[in-house]
Amino acid sequence: MSRTIALLTDFGIQDIYVGVMKGVMRDIYPEAHFIDITHQIPAQSVRAGAVALANSYSYFPEGTVFLVVVDPGVGSTRRPIAVTAGEYSFIAPDNGVLTYALRHYKDIQASALENSVYRLDRVSNTFHGRDVFAPAAAYLARGDVGLRDLGQMLDSDSLFRLPDPQIRMEAGYILGEITHIDHFGNIITSIGPLRWVDDERIILDVTNQGTLMRVRPQNAIVQILGEELKGISSAYHMVPLGSLLAQIDSNGFLEIAVNHGSAAERLDATVGDQIKLHIT
Amino acid sequence: MSRTIALLTDFGIQDIYVGVMKGVMRDIYPEAHFIDITHQIPAQSVRAGAVALANSYSYFPEGTVFLVVVDPGVGSTRRPIAVTAGEYSFIAPDNGVLTYALRHYKDIQASALENSVYRLDRVSNTFHGRDVFAPAAAYLARGDVGLRDLGQMLDSDSLFRLPDPQIRMEAGYILGEITHIDHFGNIITSIGPLRWVDDERIILDVTNQGTLMRVRPQNAIVQILGEELKGISSAYHMVPLGSLLAQIDSNGFLEIAVNHGSAAERLDATVGDQIKLHIT
Amino acid sequence: MSRTIALLTDFGIQDIYVGVMKGVMRDIYPEAHFIDITHQIPAQSVRAGAVALANSYSYFPEGTVFLVVVDPGVGSTRRPIAVTAGEYSFIAPDNGVLTYALRHYKDIQASALENSVYRLDRVSNTFHGRDVFAPAAAYLARGDVGLRDLGQMLDSDSLFRLPDPQIRMEAGYILGEITHIDHFGNIITSIGPLRWVDDERIILDVTNQGTLMRVRPQNAIVQILGEELKGISSAYHMVPLGSLLAQIDSNGFLEIAVNHGSAAERLDATVGDQIKLHIT
Repeated sequence: MSRTIALLTDFGIQDIYVGVMKGVMRDIYPEAHFIDITHQIPAQSVRAGAVALANSYSYFPEGTVFLVVVDPGVGSTRRPIAVTAGEYSFIAPDNGVLTYALRHYKDIQASALENSVYRLDRVSNTFHGRDVFAPAAAYLARGDVGLRDLGQMLDSDSLFRLPDPQIRMEAGYILGEITHIDHFGNIITSIGPLRWVDDERIILDVTNQGTLMRVRPQNAIVQILGEELKGISSAYHMVPLGSLLAQIDSNGFLEIAVNHGSAAERLDATVGDQIKLHIT
Repeated sequence: MSRTIALLTDFGIQDIYVGVMKGVMRDIYPEAHFIDITHQIPAQSVRAGAVALANSYSYFPEGTVFLVVVDPGVGSTRRPIAVTAGEYSFIAPDNGVLTYALRHYKDIQASALENSVYRLDRVSNTFHGRDVFAPAAAYLARGDVGLRDLGQMLDSDSLFRLPDPQIRMEAGYILGEITHIDHFGNIITSIGPLRWVDDERIILDVTNQGTLMRVRPQNAIVQILGEELKGISSAYHMVPLGSLLAQIDSNGFLEIAVNHGSAAERLDATVGDQIKLHIT
Repeated sequence: MSRTIALLTDFGIQDIYVGVMKGVMRDIYPEAHFIDITHQIPAQSVRAGAVALANSYSYFPEGTVFLVVVDPGVGSTRRPIAVTAGEYSFIAPDNGVLTYALRHYKDIQASALENSVYRLDRVSNTFHGRDVFAPAAAYLARGDVGLRDLGQMLDSDSLFRLPDPQIRMEAGYILGEITHIDHFGNIITSIGPLRWVDDERIILDVTNQGTLMRVRPQNAIVQILGEELKGISSAYHMVPLGSLLAQIDSNGFLEIAVNHGSAAERLDATVGDQIKLHIT
């Protein structure tokens, strides 16, 4: 059965880059099946790539190899690495782009992509996606090459890690930031994970802040970019067409949206902007 | 042999949404083969999705499952449904997005996507594409689950249906509207289906208006956005470079184009704008 | 084992066109595996398509069929053709879009796509991608149909060919032009192929100009759009963040880039603009 290789890059889709990586991989592993997560990560935004990967990887089948190329340091000394964690493998530059996806794994194996046998014959200084990362992903997915073959094993504690998205408990409120603005203009924030217990209670599980809180959705107040929203809604249609609302997004994070509209446009929002969730 | 799942959404390609749906489907049906029809349906435009599906579905192989997610009502009470018609299956919200694709089928079976066995364990309020629609598509494509397993059977007459795109017979002319503007700036309209009989005659088959008309292409006059075009051309190159022309598009509808240019830009056209075809 | 069909078009991704071609191909060849090279070739830019194909095809597995549809002449008399060269096959309009990919092949076979058995039943005047090219690609990939079946064999010298991208030896410098601007704003030029021999020497192989030159990277001077760059760098990070540099792109051509930025934006560059490489 053919194994899935899932691709996540900042390459965009106007150039030949993504197609060429797939060509390289089919040449090495003729049964490869590709799924594009997205290639529209903002150019060189390692952190946006890390958030996107964390929110998607767990929906893929066991054995999936993730080829993650957001690589502003291409050609420099940052290491190209292979990582296995749980049932998944990841090929990426060691720049932190795997940080949030690996967060919940205890047993992480990693190796450096050094072995020239598993690279293209000529390695350019500008396109390691094609010359180094894609071949490694294809060999791993094919199943007859392991981490140890690709290069020397690395101490998983030595992998470069990004700081967590900002979330801080203050007196009476939680301070977070915008982590992503989606195609619909929905604003995704760092406040979470949140989960409905029943129609009247939400649990906010900020365990990395040492806290597990119960939130009454009707009492919560959200402040963002000069707007104040009362209550957390259970769905878009709970507010009139064109109105702003706060709700829980599909990955458990606080989301600001407009029913049938773009919240990002309405609020002129940018990734990194602050958000406050008041709990009373 | 692996069955094709064809995807049509308004999700865009910058987010992880489409990739995650495919991950979910490969997990359920490891042989799944995906074809993206498009993910660039204008946000929440059910009608544009319905037109796109109607113009594409018939080119796909027997047994194809269409996963159609243009779903402004996500989280509300609109039903998620499965439909089989002829050799195809469709998974979609019951908001009319299947209307034009189903138009020519007599024998339509439908069921509601209710059975929690064929959903993800946790169903969010914002992403039924991932939690409800994608799993149903994968189970159907896998072939061991039928409509009846997914939920209770529905009267196919009870499915929500959109009104037809506007086309009206008036004294001496036919009134239509712009239904789509494509990547090249070609303007597609509701006037059709049209078909060349020979070099001198076109048949206009407006049978839902009770009419089957013969059009002399050289006598036809098209009025659109202040422009008047004489004659229906047989191909782009029948007019000089940069000139406007009327012709029959690849799905049989009246199209306004510019040879090597953008008619939409030239005419500042918008979906919904009127067009008149005068027949003498 | 399923054969790869690689697609390269100017269709964009907002319409149903690419998906419909894939549907047609899966119907003819149920095992078809598709790789999108890109669909964002500028509308009707045959030359940009030719450059993209030349830089990508050689990374694909033996037996790959390339479906190349940049076809401003659709519906006119330009011939649709099938070509085999080395281990690859190409389906395209005979408008020069294959020129650069075929450049290094001696033994080229070509035929015209004339046989109506291997077209869709009804051929439109506006979408030969669907009606003529996609079926031919699928039949070829399936392996039981050959060039001779598709239509009459053509003299390969009769194929339409584009002129080479501009590159000219002058006294003390080489004159080239911008051939592509990528998603990151990197500027790719016609000056090449270039290749590092060691850390101090680059070979410029302009054999179609009768020349094989040795370039000292630290002595080279690049002039482009009023800027003068000293030296050819070996990687982005050899200059400070935000600085301009000249380097060798992943296909061996002189590239102007900004470390972590967009050179095209900085220089307001356009495809076709001149570049000079001074060698001393």
